[in-house]
Amino acid sequence: MTVATVKYLQTPTSNAWIEQAIAHLDTILLDHSHCERKAAGVALNLMCRYPSNTELVYQLTAIAREELEHFDRVNQILERRGIPLAPLPAPPYGAGLKAKVRRNEPERLLDSLLVSGLIEARSHERLGLLADRLDDRELAAFYRSLMASEARHYGAYWVLATTYFDRDAVTERLEELAAVESELLATLHPEPRIHS
Amino acid sequence: MTVATVKYLQTPTSNAWIEQAIAHLDTILLDHSHCERKAAGVALNLMCRYPSNTELVYQLTAIAREELEHFDRVNQILERRGIPLAPLPAPPYGAGLKAKVRRNEPERLLDSLLVSGLIEARSHERLGLLADRLDDRELAAFYRSLMASEARHYGAYWVLATTYFDRDAVTERLEELAAVESELLATLHPEPRIHS
Ligand SMILES: [Fe+2]
Ligand SMILES: [Fe+2]
Ligand SMILES: [Fe+2]
Ligand SMILES: [Fe+2]
Repeated sequence: MTVATVKYLQTPTSNAWIEQAIAHLDTILLDHSHCERKAAGVALNLMCRYPSNTELVYQLTAIAREELEHFDRVNQILERRGIPLAPLPAPPYGAGLKAKVRRNEPERLLDSLLVSGLIEARSHERLGLLADRLDDRELAAFYRSLMASEARHYGAYWVLATTYFDRDAVTERLEELAAVESELLATLHPEPRIHS
Repeated sequence: MTVATVKYLQTPTSNAWIEQAIAHLDTILLDHSHCERKAAGVALNLMCRYPSNTELVYQLTAIAREELEHFDRVNQILERRGIPLAPLPAPPYGAGLKAKVRRNEPERLLDSLLVSGLIEARSHERLGLLADRLDDRELAAFYRSLMASEARHYGAYWVLATTYFDRDAVTERLEELAAVESELLATLHPEPRIHS
């Protein structure tokens, strides 16, 4: 099957992931809760690190607030379904991307923004796939309702990158990181996760 | 002058702090912005550390969301007043309290909740003093509007402590930490801060 590729992503999600996710929806929901909390944490940490970058602080405050709202909404669904909150080992995806963030400034800022943008783009793509494929109407509607704000998030990370860096430098580095991102998902992680 | 002591706090804020704050309002506003962002970060970190404690996760999500809203509101005031966002060295208060958090569980959780509650109680007290004393009506109204939610926050930390720990143990430890908190503020920090 061919799936349209979301902007910034180099390869679309495989059917294998969709099948794995649909077969383990409870775990995917719990992992989704962790993803939303982590997304809020990443935005908050970034704005702590660059307290003088006004535009960055404003945009990331808005993102962090929305991620916490998403977190709350996923948790309400977990509660209604009797799925208890619990820790869940992270898949290698996040750490694999983080390892590519260069340590020195200003490269660190550029890479951090692009990695966050790629994760948002992938979340957007996968929530969309779940919205399309799930028979469970409540969940499908929930995932669809999140998509617009996840798309806004990856757009915001991209705009921030081009606010602080030259557009060509951003495009070039984005291609490198997007290749890594696709490579990390090329082999399905055995544990079902949003980013397995 | 005698000031009514806020619940949980052992000593009221000195007049010296109020005078220092009023004389350096721009710095206090900027520090307040950092305090709100840090308060959101503390709530988020705590809920990351105890992902199975449902009640804690729910309450801290609500707190983190409100702190980010406060952060946004302070930043809007900074912008209207032409005060640029900038880093600001933290006063010894936060690190002094953090040093008292015991390392092992379950003491670590109890102490973390009580330290956060004390910081919220002190913020509540000091925002109230600013609301009472400022001639600047816009700021006075702003500070007054935050007080109710800061009071809810310290109440929530207290309720969480008594959810996971025996009430007598909570009261006893709170007294010890409240003594440290008052001691940390006994000498006015030379740099004007919300917690100087
Ligand atoms: Fe989200
Ligand atoms: Fe997002
Ligand atoms: Fe606040
Ligand atoms: Fe608060």
